[in-house]
Amino acid sequence: MTNASQEVMQPAVQSVQSFDAWMAAVQATMEQALSSFLPDAAQAPQELHQAMRYAALDGGKRVRPLLAFAAGELFAAAPQQLQRAAAAVEMIHAYSLVHDDMPCMDDDALRRGKPTVHVKFGQASALLAGDALQAQAFLVLTDGAGDADCKLAMVRLLAQASGSLGMCGGQAIDLASVGLHLSRQQLEQMHRLKTGALLRAAVLLGALSGKLLTPTEEQALDRYAAGVGLAFQVVDDILDATADSATLGKTAGKDAADNKPTYVSILGLDASKALAEQLRQDAHAAILSFGDKAQRLRELADLIVQRKA
Amino acid sequence: MTNASQEVMQPAVQSVQSFDAWMAAVQATMEQALSSFLPDAAQAPQELHQAMRYAALDGGKRVRPLLAFAAGELFAAAPQQLQRAAAAVEMIHAYSLVHDDMPCMDDDALRRGKPTVHVKFGQASALLAGDALQAQAFLVLTDGAGDADCKLAMVRLLAQASGSLGMCGGQAIDLASVGLHLSRQQLEQMHRLKTGALLRAAVLLGALSGKLLTPTEEQALDRYAAGVGLAFQVVDDILDATADSATLGKTAGKDAADNKPTYVSILGLDASKALAEQLRQDAHAAILSFGDKAQRLRELADLIVQRKA
Repeated sequence: MTNASQEVMQPAVQSVQSFDAWMAAVQATMEQALSSFLPDAAQAPQELHQAMRYAALDGGKRVRPLLAFAAGELFAAAPQQLQRAAAAVEMIHAYSLVHDDMPCMDDDALRRGKPTVHVKFGQASALLAGDALQAQAFLVLTDGAGDADCKLAMVRLLAQASGSLGMCGGQAIDLASVGLHLSRQQLEQMHRLKTGALLRAAVLLGALSGKLLTPTEEQALDRYAAGVGLAFQVVDDILDATADSATLGKTAGKDAADNKPTYVSILGLDASKALAEQLRQDAHAAILSFGDKAQRLRELADLIVQRKA
Repeated sequence: MTNASQEVMQPAVQSVQSFDAWMAAVQATMEQALSSFLPDAAQAPQELHQAMRYAALDGGKRVRPLLAFAAGELFAAAPQQLQRAAAAVEMIHAYSLVHDDMPCMDDDALRRGKPTVHVKFGQASALLAGDALQAQAFLVLTDGAGDADCKLAMVRLLAQASGSLGMCGGQAIDLASVGLHLSRQQLEQMHRLKTGALLRAAVLLGALSGKLLTPTEEQALDRYAAGVGLAFQVVDDILDATADSATLGKTAGKDAADNKPTYVSILGLDASKALAEQLRQDAHAAILSFGDKAQRLRELADLIVQRKA
């Protein structure tokens, strides 16, 4: 009985594992899930599918899938549905990186230590691969078992999080703010959309893979996601100012070189570090009521603030 | 009783109207619907929302919404759901034009007689506006009344039609075929994906706004959409070779200048015209069993083949 039930929950929702082992299991599961949810590289049009797979596979810390799996653990979500939810969010994230790296945006040649998609496949293919990854994300959410209302709620959440009042909106504000002096409040609003919206979607889609949420549950997860989302960006800014390109796997010091406002440029390094720690504690406080089941969410908040890359 | 029922069906599904009046009503309805389904231009981030509205509003023949409304008429679809379905397809179409016009793709400065989005708003905003329009399309499908299974089927159809095995895939094949000699079969496969997939989605989403389809109904509509979709492209190629830029509202003769294979370059002008006429008749034959209710679908097939721009 115990074995059978453990098997169903395999491989990512085992509280007995160490955090590192749990993370590695989720990352391995997601690599496999993403690969299976993307068209085969040998299927026509091959170059497009190769570019999509290059963008989404074999890279990244999978922070969003980790958040989705940790939130799914709260409500004993079925692994298959959790994988779909996490993969959809990760595909949106992957497409946003592809487009963000293009010459007309951030013009970055290096991502996760590899040539960016437009450097490897050309700009037109990068544009199309990003577009097709976005469509694939929504497609993945409609597949598999599960309640139609729950799935539709996921489609809705993901569309909101990635659209003009979410991620795309944040990127537009980011673009418009180059060379401007932003207040801390304006910077926070920008990041709340640019990265926060999708991190929130990861948490909520993970939880929705288990069940429709009560307002109280959603509010607690929202507060957690807000803290973690902002902490993620503050730490990104700290690392951009302090780490080297080899450690980051992308060009360090780029924000300063591009004259972009950052937490470090507005608050200074020490105050930025103190803010990240405060946000970590806020995230912990938000999910206190979930008790032991929220262990992975707590550990993820710690990881996001204490990471070195 | 009759009045009340007519009011519910207002303004687009009245068989008593002339075809021209029906078209004008659908176009006016869709302009209003698209406007209401897009974020206000005054809402932050303003420039992004302005670019999205510029891309989607005030332009185009609205062929896809017309197809959706004509198909919805078969199954007495409720206007509100039909508008959402048609708007979602049109937003996908609008985003694809924005990205397709960018310098790294077709590099076109003129669209529907107006400067293209990247010319007016810059490339970065055009990229983001296209991305956000895609997300908005899926968001619109989740809103409003209607059965969750039906809505989910629409999300699924639209994601398939616009992704790597639909529209984006067709564009990738199109890109890869510049300067190559394609067979008629290869050209047809390219267009079946590039424009055909979304035209098919328009027909099926319109019908799904009325009810879930039987296999026989879906098959008939599929055959109709295949004929109309291919005819649309054959006529596009004929017009590109024969009309002037002012009439088209976009740069004429561009395919030949770009060394792209077209029906005219492969079959010649006369055989292309004969093919378009054959496809028109195929489309009529496919929907014969629907009887009088399919009048608008028949008229649209005629319009698509006989249009001058």
